[in-house]
Amino acid sequence: MWRDRRILDLFGIEHPILLAPMAGPVLSDMAIAVATEGGLGALPSAMLSPEQTRAELDKFRAAVKAPVNLNFFCHTPPVPDEKREAAWRARLAPYYAELGVDPAAPIPVSSRTPFDEGLCQLVEALRPEIVSFHFGLPPEALVARVKAAGAKVISSATTVREAIWLAERGCDAIISQGFEAGGHRGVFLGGDAAQQVGTMALVPQVVDAVKVPVIAAGGIADGRGIAAALALGASAVQIGTAYLFCPEAKVNAPHRAALKASWDDDTVLTRVFTGRPARGIANRIVREIGAMSELPPQFPLAGGALMPLRGKAEPAGSGDFTPLWSGQAMRLGRELPAGELTRTLVRETQDRLRQIADH
Amino acid sequence: MWRDRRILDLFGIEHPILLAPMAGPVLSDMAIAVATEGGLGALPSAMLSPEQTRAELDKFRAAVKAPVNLNFFCHTPPVPDEKREAAWRARLAPYYAELGVDPAAPIPVSSRTPFDEGLCQLVEALRPEIVSFHFGLPPEALVARVKAAGAKVISSATTVREAIWLAERGCDAIISQGFEAGGHRGVFLGGDAAQQVGTMALVPQVVDAVKVPVIAAGGIADGRGIAAALALGASAVQIGTAYLFCPEAKVNAPHRAALKASWDDDTVLTRVFTGRPARGIANRIVREIGAMSELPPQFPLAGGALMPLRGKAEPAGSGDFTPLWSGQAMRLGRELPAGELTRTLVRETQDRLRQIADH
Repeated sequence: MWRDRRILDLFGIEHPILLAPMAGPVLSDMAIAVATEGGLGALPSAMLSPEQTRAELDKFRAAVKAPVNLNFFCHTPPVPDEKREAAWRARLAPYYAELGVDPAAPIPVSSRTPFDEGLCQLVEALRPEIVSFHFGLPPEALVARVKAAGAKVISSATTVREAIWLAERGCDAIISQGFEAGGHRGVFLGGDAAQQVGTMALVPQVVDAVKVPVIAAGGIADGRGIAAALALGASAVQIGTAYLFCPEAKVNAPHRAALKASWDDDTVLTRVFTGRPARGIANRIVREIGAMSELPPQFPLAGGALMPLRGKAEPAGSGDFTPLWSGQAMRLGRELPAGELTRTLVRETQDRLRQIADH
Repeated sequence: MWRDRRILDLFGIEHPILLAPMAGPVLSDMAIAVATEGGLGALPSAMLSPEQTRAELDKFRAAVKAPVNLNFFCHTPPVPDEKREAAWRARLAPYYAELGVDPAAPIPVSSRTPFDEGLCQLVEALRPEIVSFHFGLPPEALVARVKAAGAKVISSATTVREAIWLAERGCDAIISQGFEAGGHRGVFLGGDAAQQVGTMALVPQVVDAVKVPVIAAGGIADGRGIAAALALGASAVQIGTAYLFCPEAKVNAPHRAALKASWDDDTVLTRVFTGRPARGIANRIVREIGAMSELPPQFPLAGGALMPLRGKAEPAGSGDFTPLWSGQAMRLGRELPAGELTRTLVRETQDRLRQIADH
């Protein structure tokens, strides 16, 4: 059915579609739905405790006999900087006053644990078939242990240079994350956010630069995009935003409403919500702070001080302070259950490939 | 040979490949080479006098019996602003001193004439088969006269909203110019340069929003990219950067060297060279002034004051002050004559379409 079987054989899946491990929106129910239809289900652990991750994986294993992709962040933990955090809270103080939030109330710590000894032990215990990392790779010794535990290792490259770096360090496949993608840029070798590369340009240049198979991500939301990615030389695609429209997605009401109402050029890369550049629909806090402001503290600390504002605004139907993560192809989104969406994507891609070659 | 014949039939060409009308690098020799091989040749008039445009078109007509795309800018002419221009010259003064340029010497006026009565009369006299505009469309009455002269009218959209605007005003086809594209962004409805949309996301959303055929541009430089664009629903592609590598391209030596040495993430959108956002390889002047600085005067005035610096630097082999226009897929460039490149693109696309559908 698929001509390029490199990723299918590497992962042991039927269709070249990977559910993006979107921390927050994706839990086991969506992973199960995608895996049941022959795509690769993912479980994002970055915002879960090890116990929660284990429980989600148990649910997945009980529901479907299929490989799973367990995802971890591997950022450098932030250096606490009281002065910077105080400046951030001071900048947000007018919003606290406006929404009637007590400025003296303790703010939650926005913790996203980078991959470490404890999480490595979790991988060794749970033995996921695929482990994906965001923001580069953890130390060499940990990567070796993940591989020894039987997992294929993948990570995201936002440039050709990052792809080469990942391939040299043993990645079994590389996600080529184009500029269009929603959520956090995987960027880890530095570089200006304004110089990030679009999927159309990035994928073939990465394919030419590395020997391992390439997974295209960014702006792909229907069968046309999947067929295009395969034409560019990708062996599979990773899809995020299209799955945010599914009923299984844990997306709050203002976020869901924004996804449905937005235009292609309504998103922006912003540091406001976490301290790292991530793509979301521009909203009030992004516009007023400045999307790429240096004011928000180091990743992931920036988010904590926004939580009390979200706690007030979201129940009132406002997404003014909410990270409205989205890629640029949100207008292609369809409100289908994740399993049905996966089947639809497969059928559309097959149809499209037949159509364009019919000459 | 091609399944989607909408653009082929509209323009009367054999292959769905349009040479981008790159003002400066493209003259009749390259247009003739592309048209001879069945693509659409283009003559960019923005930096030519009407007499030069007429002479180039005469050469084209004498060499090949094929349609041609005559391209015009249709920006609003700049309002002279002595204070702003003085501030710009003052900012450049240290460079003048460094390179030994007399700061009191008159600087050339950077004139790019927008489409007007005189150019409309030229179109009525020359009767090109296709007229393309950049930066929107000229006034309605002029568009009507261009159409009455027998030309199909096309223009570039950088967003879905711009595509709808162009379709409503009678464009026969729309160029969907993704973020990856080199040279000037066609943006004309305003909006933040940071919110520009990548080709992979833009093309299918434009295809869904308009009834006229869509031409994909941005990051497309080989058969993989062309096949991908067709998969996304485009009826043809427009290619620029890949043709800058051809011997026919009027590209100065530092520019040519930079194209060959660059990486995918070495380009940036910058206002420095003309006053409008355009993609080029980041060089010294871009880094030191700031790519999107508001200091350069209104389009196209910014370029004049840079000319004396280029006049000193370029002969010495330096591209420090030169607009090094490039899209993000420059690593796919090949130094082939334009006719051979066109044939290669056709063959690669056909091969790629067969390969991906062979299942």
